Amino acid sequence: MQAQLQKLTELTAEIADLNHANALLGWDQHVYMPPGGAEERGNMMGTLGKLAHEKFTSEEMGKLLADLKTHLPELDADGDTYRLISVTARDYEKSTCVPPEFIAEQAQVTAMAQQAWVEARTKSDFSIFCPHLEKVVELNQRFVTFFPPADHPYDTLLDTYEPGMKTAEVKAIFDGLRPLQVELLRAISQRPQVEDAFMHLDYDEKTMWDFSVEVATAFGYDWKRGRQDPTAHPFCQSIGPDDVRITSRWVPELPYALLFGTMHETGHALYEQGVDHSWNRTALESGASLGIHESQSRMWENQVGRSRAFWEHFYPRLQERFKTQLGNVSLDQFYRGINRVQPSCIRVEADEATYNLHIMLRLELEIAMLEGSVAIKDLPEIWNAKMQDYLGIVPPDDARGVLQDVHWSGGMLGYFSTYALGNLISAQLWEKFKSLNPELNNQLRQGDFSALLAWLRGEIHQHGRKYQPQELVERVTGSKIDPAPYIIYLKEKYGEIYGL
Amino acid sequence: MQAQLQKLTELTAEIADLNHANALLGWDQHVYMPPGGAEERGNMMGTLGKLAHEKFTSEEMGKLLADLKTHLPELDADGDTYRLISVTARDYEKSTCVPPEFIAEQAQVTAMAQQAWVEARTKSDFSIFCPHLEKVVELNQRFVTFFPPADHPYDTLLDTYEPGMKTAEVKAIFDGLRPLQVELLRAISQRPQVEDAFMHLDYDEKTMWDFSVEVATAFGYDWKRGRQDPTAHPFCQSIGPDDVRITSRWVPELPYALLFGTMHETGHALYEQGVDHSWNRTALESGASLGIHESQSRMWENQVGRSRAFWEHFYPRLQERFKTQLGNVSLDQFYRGINRVQPSCIRVEADEATYNLHIMLRLELEIAMLEGSVAIKDLPEIWNAKMQDYLGIVPPDDARGVLQDVHWSGGMLGYFSTYALGNLISAQLWEKFKSLNPELNNQLRQGDFSALLAWLRGEIHQHGRKYQPQELVERVTGSKIDPAPYIIYLKEKYGEIYGL
Repeated sequence: MQAQLQKLTELTAEIADLNHANALLGWDQHVYMPPGGAEERGNMMGTLGKLAHEKFTSEEMGKLLADLKTHLPELDADGDTYRLISVTARDYEKSTCVPPEFIAEQAQVTAMAQQAWVEARTKSDFSIFCPHLEKVVELNQRFVTFFPPADHPYDTLLDTYEPGMKTAEVKAIFDGLRPLQVELLRAISQRPQVEDAFMHLDYDEKTMWDFSVEVATAFGYDWKRGRQDPTAHPFCQSIGPDDVRITSRWVPELPYALLFGTMHETGHALYEQGVDHSWNRTALESGASLGIHESQSRMWENQVGRSRAFWEHFYPRLQERFKTQLGNVSLDQFYRGINRVQPSCIRVEADEATYNLHIMLRLELEIAMLEGSVAIKDLPEIWNAKMQDYLGIVPPDDARGVLQDVHWSGGMLGYFSTYALGNLISAQLWEKFKSLNPELNNQLRQGDFSALLAWLRGEIHQHGRKYQPQELVERVTGSKIDPAPYIIYLKEKYGEIYGL
Repeated sequence: MQAQLQKLTELTAEIADLNHANALLGWDQHVYMPPGGAEERGNMMGTLGKLAHEKFTSEEMGKLLADLKTHLPELDADGDTYRLISVTARDYEKSTCVPPEFIAEQAQVTAMAQQAWVEARTKSDFSIFCPHLEKVVELNQRFVTFFPPADHPYDTLLDTYEPGMKTAEVKAIFDGLRPLQVELLRAISQRPQVEDAFMHLDYDEKTMWDFSVEVATAFGYDWKRGRQDPTAHPFCQSIGPDDVRITSRWVPELPYALLFGTMHETGHALYEQGVDHSWNRTALESGASLGIHESQSRMWENQVGRSRAFWEHFYPRLQERFKTQLGNVSLDQFYRGINRVQPSCIRVEADEATYNLHIMLRLELEIAMLEGSVAIKDLPEIWNAKMQDYLGIVPPDDARGVLQDVHWSGGMLGYFSTYALGNLISAQLWEKFKSLNPELNNQLRQGDFSALLAWLRGEIHQHGRKYQPQELVERVTGSKIDPAPYIIYLKEKYGEIYGL
């Protein structure tokens, strides 16, 4: 078996190298590539992706994994070797399910759909995107047929982003959560609004950038194994655990988006930088799922970065940099301002109290689309009705409604719920760590994040993809993904801010 | 044959994609990679290089090229199809000559040699590098045995960088050139030295950077298909003809190095940006040879960028930016200053009149090393004697002597002469174009480089690797590489500056 493991390591290392190269090509594409390079960049990324796929789905790999799987009964099911084999085999089985012709067709359909979506959003005209979305849905309906039957076809889509997660579980979580979030939002809306005019003044970009670097450094981001660059859309890109880059966006009208965006991407980056080096160049070297990943980014952005304790340490530093804008703003006013709750049409601008409602709406529509229980042409109307229902507002146009997100045009159904799951998991982990470490708030007050990071490293980061998300959350907190801690967190936080 | 050509295009396109990806990995490594990424970057580049090599030396490729070669007699030997087949087949034959075990051994030896060279240069202690250089030479001696016997074993090394070039040709060129260059240098040294104190004042980096961008733009560098970034060592990197990047270096003590370095790299970039798009993703998409490439970079740096006509247009603009430093420096003083001849120990800092002498010295040593007619341990002594002989100076230590260049530690013998050949070719092309276009100087005086660029595009750039260097030079100028125009150019230029 040692020789077979050695062979597996060699094969996956090459595949990882190709994927890392593609990750860098993607990073460069969004950060530094001149426009002329776009066409050949598409070729390069296509070729590298194809080679990685060919290598991973090769007969040699199939035979090797089949052989290795025969050894699983002899191994500790919680041990690294067992998991390396089983996770890689699971990836292999999923990769070999889908015929290459389907992948090619998907690439074509989504390339057209993305173009149409850009035009539709620009013109705020859903009819331009509608026929493409119909094809995307049809593709997704066909996609699930390549896999063994699941309890619900949507399970197969979810599994791509949140391995092992079931539609029934997500539905149950969200069904419990929705009335509580809607109720909280109604209660907040009855109370006097907090003041946040100071967030909309003129701020200097470089000063805000430098402050965000100071915060990322304090969080524990390792600059020797990463870097930060400006982009149109912020993201985190791992090119292997020792080269994990973040990007940030400066929008003069939203000066704090750079700061909180940096905290968010730093959260993702700390996860990737923290994966145990023994997983390097294996199938396990990344994060457990998008939901677990989002739990890390949201925790550093929200539980840490929007907490009063954090700002007790950092607010004087920020005030010092922005005397004009913040000289007359007290810590308390600042804290309330950055936590203002305000239902809005745009998901990516949503606050902590409304964000999940945007997700629930999308999840319900995705399930209905996949089931075929809704006509695609009716989506704008249903979208708006749900917005009214959950958030009490109706988008002024489809560009700010059903057309706002890129995901569906990219063929991705099943992705959105990971954002909300991330919120829930972040609160669940936060509650757990607070119970283990009652000094947490005092540590934040001192700008000391080392205990938090060490705990996340030990419990989450180091394991990479060793555990499935539900399993990981249960190992760490004692229960599966549970919305209760998030509701408690929201109620406590906003109860205090809005005097509920 | 059409189906076979189509297949060839598909295969080489994938290989080109891999090579382009590797080019970007290399660019990023020198420009933006955080230090932690170094180890995995080595893995990534190794894997991509190996895959490209495997694909290119595959049986499928061998069979396909063998079949295509049978059609050559039916084709026009100057036509694109003929050349596509013959150049690719030639590359294939060269790639399949060398056993993979040798390539692996070479990688190991040079990795060690480079480390040793860094230490040896830092300590200025040749004995640290000596045993590694012995191995490098031994590797090169073995390398040539894999190829069909040549007139001289050094031919095989030359051929890697300067396809088709013979040692006897290079020797004949340099043997004719050396006494003339030595004589010119002696004559210059008898004359009063020109003043260049203004070049060693404090200059502002950003202002010089902006000016260098203005010059590169005027030359015709297409910023939509390129970009410029700061690095420790300037270079040009093509990631395909539509993404050709240059880098520049700021050294406060040598403020003009950034400007002339940018002109030089722009010259390389104009070549790569000018290759005909029909060669995209084929074996022919790059430059004909290192010597031809260097002819382009040196022409834009020297024949253009160090000419009086160029500065008649640009000097007022530079003066405007640097009033303090240049306010009292006349155009004539400036022109003389930037063309000051001063023998120095370091090749990369050498002026036009001394540069080739540095190369001749290296070529003679390389041939002697390969022939085994010199003991490696005696190199420092021989180096210094030749420096005295050709340049009239002796390096104060080996760091500034035999240890100054990285090439040998990287296993590269045969590379250096391409720099000098580039100088010669640049003068030869320049002379030809002046004869065709008597208005050239007037165009330069107006900052108009469009006629020059259009001619280079048509005669050199568009062809990519279609022609071998000697063939290309002969097609354009009517004769093979010839040192006479360079000597005439030097004598005219320095005769005027130094009043010879």
